[in-house]
Amino acid sequence: MTERVFSPFLAGRTGSGKTCPVEYEHLGFERDGGTVTITLDRPDRRNCLSSDVLGELLDAFRAAGALDDVSGIVLASTGPVFSAGHDLAQMAAMSEDELRALFELCTEAMTSMAEVPQVVVARVQGLATAAGAQLAASADLVVASEDAAFATPGGKGGLFCHTPLVAVARQVGRKRAVELALTGGTIDAATALDWGLVNRVVPAADLEAATTEFLGYATRGSRSAKALGKRTLYRQLDMTVDDAYEMAVDVMSRAAAHGDGREWPRAFVEKRAPVWPHRD
Amino acid sequence: MTERVFSPFLAGRTGSGKTCPVEYEHLGFERDGGTVTITLDRPDRRNCLSSDVLGELLDAFRAAGALDDVSGIVLASTGPVFSAGHDLAQMAAMSEDELRALFELCTEAMTSMAEVPQVVVARVQGLATAAGAQLAASADLVVASEDAAFATPGGKGGLFCHTPLVAVARQVGRKRAVELALTGGTIDAATALDWGLVNRVVPAADLEAATTEFLGYATRGSRSAKALGKRTLYRQLDMTVDDAYEMAVDVMSRAAAHGDGREWPRAFVEKRAPVWPHRD
Amino acid sequence: MTERVFSPFLAGRTGSGKTCPVEYEHLGFERDGGTVTITLDRPDRRNCLSSDVLGELLDAFRAAGALDDVSGIVLASTGPVFSAGHDLAQMAAMSEDELRALFELCTEAMTSMAEVPQVVVARVQGLATAAGAQLAASADLVVASEDAAFATPGGKGGLFCHTPLVAVARQVGRKRAVELALTGGTIDAATALDWGLVNRVVPAADLEAATTEFLGYATRGSRSAKALGKRTLYRQLDMTVDDAYEMAVDVMSRAAAHGDGREWPRAFVEKRAPVWPHRD
Repeated sequence: MTERVFSPFLAGRTGSGKTCPVEYEHLGFERDGGTVTITLDRPDRRNCLSSDVLGELLDAFRAAGALDDVSGIVLASTGPVFSAGHDLAQMAAMSEDELRALFELCTEAMTSMAEVPQVVVARVQGLATAAGAQLAASADLVVASEDAAFATPGGKGGLFCHTPLVAVARQVGRKRAVELALTGGTIDAATALDWGLVNRVVPAADLEAATTEFLGYATRGSRSAKALGKRTLYRQLDMTVDDAYEMAVDVMSRAAAHGDGREWPRAFVEKRAPVWPHRD
Repeated sequence: MTERVFSPFLAGRTGSGKTCPVEYEHLGFERDGGTVTITLDRPDRRNCLSSDVLGELLDAFRAAGALDDVSGIVLASTGPVFSAGHDLAQMAAMSEDELRALFELCTEAMTSMAEVPQVVVARVQGLATAAGAQLAASADLVVASEDAAFATPGGKGGLFCHTPLVAVARQVGRKRAVELALTGGTIDAATALDWGLVNRVVPAADLEAATTEFLGYATRGSRSAKALGKRTLYRQLDMTVDDAYEMAVDVMSRAAAHGDGREWPRAFVEKRAPVWPHRD
Repeated sequence: MTERVFSPFLAGRTGSGKTCPVEYEHLGFERDGGTVTITLDRPDRRNCLSSDVLGELLDAFRAAGALDDVSGIVLASTGPVFSAGHDLAQMAAMSEDELRALFELCTEAMTSMAEVPQVVVARVQGLATAAGAQLAASADLVVASEDAAFATPGGKGGLFCHTPLVAVARQVGRKRAVELALTGGTIDAATALDWGLVNRVVPAADLEAATTEFLGYATRGSRSAKALGKRTLYRQLDMTVDDAYEMAVDVMSRAAAHGDGREWPRAFVEKRAPVWPHRD
């Protein structure tokens, strides 16, 4: 049994790859070669996102993000439900200030997936609802089981899914976002694929293997180039076309003049395979 | 026959539910329980949107919007054409100032659907063209008959559908928006569904029942929560991701601490159905 | 053989329609009635976009754009590959300043398609990769052969497709954009159609005829109205809904009071076909 490390990131114990496996109370954190798998592991609580789970998730994403010899992160969960979202029992007892702290922490955990340099793939089985749907939508990519389903159910309840819809609504088109939001209804995996909320749908029995394969497909090439690319992509999507080009031209000019961006065309000219620094 | 009320909203006669049915010259305005149905009723004029029709529509949306015991609004029309858009005969006689007033009124009528606290569903049969397509696209949700079709025909004429495309282009993806805009061509209901311009397509014979059912699906839950959610959703979709989260966290924290947002998790904890103030 | 004209636009030799055919080193530039066809013609170099090609493309788009009796532009290429993107051999030898100049020129060439008053249709066969995918995505409309395929392969290499993704990512939905970007993988024509990256997919044997027909469909009506409409559409898509309406109402009011915008409703009232100034 490894020493318990609640906060490897804040404790400054990352970067060496030596602290894995990290042990969390509610999460699995396993490393296999260049891949870290972070697993929500409270199936009896439908993997709900109480504040301690969100704190661990944020910590785990940052810890994995700081491992510069890791190229991909799988976000998974155990049991029949991917995640049921916030912990309503916990929320019922919170003051407005405590609720604000909860939603701020939640936002930080969700957006940390876009901020880490690695490719993050969510592996979704069963229901992903409310902040659980946000969790899937906030990953870079999503592989879903045929039995997966997605909902932002606040629309049929008493507390609208305001923050989950920041992530979900940007994936699916405007009328579909309004439908998910106002009806609170559930869509199945095939619909999620058709609407662009997920990237792949596979039989339940193939989910783990398909996710591993898809992550391999998404982690080819220079890690540093991809990390810069991911950050730049998310930034430019929030800009006007003119501003996006101005920023992207600046980033690309510098990237093409140095490091892996320089190595790539040179290898092409010299008719050899490119060599990346991360390659063992 | 009820007393004729041209402008119930401006006359301050709404809010009680007692003034229905309101009588308009070009519209039907009927209330049935929690639903108001607003019906364009000039089939001989292809339900064109002359300035008096737009003025009545704006008035009707505001009147329905002010009825706090109404949860849903159906926007419908009579005859084989949903709406042919602006009244070209009227426009031909207008000065630039009059045209500007017309397009400002049109914009106000269209955007009022997003501003009312209720769920607005457009029920579309036949052609919805130009400002008629904008009218459908400006509703929160759209249920279309299999014979419905959509176009922004200004692209093949002399006056481009500049303002209709503000609503239509945001629903369908960029290349499809450019195609609709530049070709002025018509798409059928199946294509509109595939492109995300409408939410449901049903046989013509089922249109009314399917719309009622879909509106029921979209009006479940707390009305006040949904009204706040709808407003917040449209606002955040116009923001960057960071700004959207900042606003949504603020809205959600306050919503979760009070009223129906507080009632929902409490009912969950107490294993009982939530009770909304609007419930009779 | 016509006199060689490298830069007809900068030399001020356009506008009369008399200077066609213009002769470029790497491009075809042919005029047939109201259509100009610009053809990348270095099939042995996979139609790569070296700086001289990009300079010619920019020049050619501006030259065609200045021909006020031209209503449509076809962007085509010869050989089995539509375009393989930047010239890696050239890039390998460039300094950071030279690379910056290259990407600035590339951006100018790409965005010039949105700026010209005509309708620009890309006719895509085979692979369109990296800046080649950007080239297709930057046209107003795309007709693709069944054998066409699209990729932003920087994601699996050493230099991320930062600038190509400004154009490509805005067409396909967020998760799909991230997939194209991070995996560097290739999608076929059917997927590109499903994702909204192209407007039509046709058998290879029909590509030229289908493109001509589609361009005819997209160039019906008043040229000046369409030119104003295209510019307004791209501008408003970069704005919030409120700002977009404010701008579009202003543009539409002025357009409806003058010229072809005035002619259209008048012709309707007078029950005659509208007459556009561009009609011969």
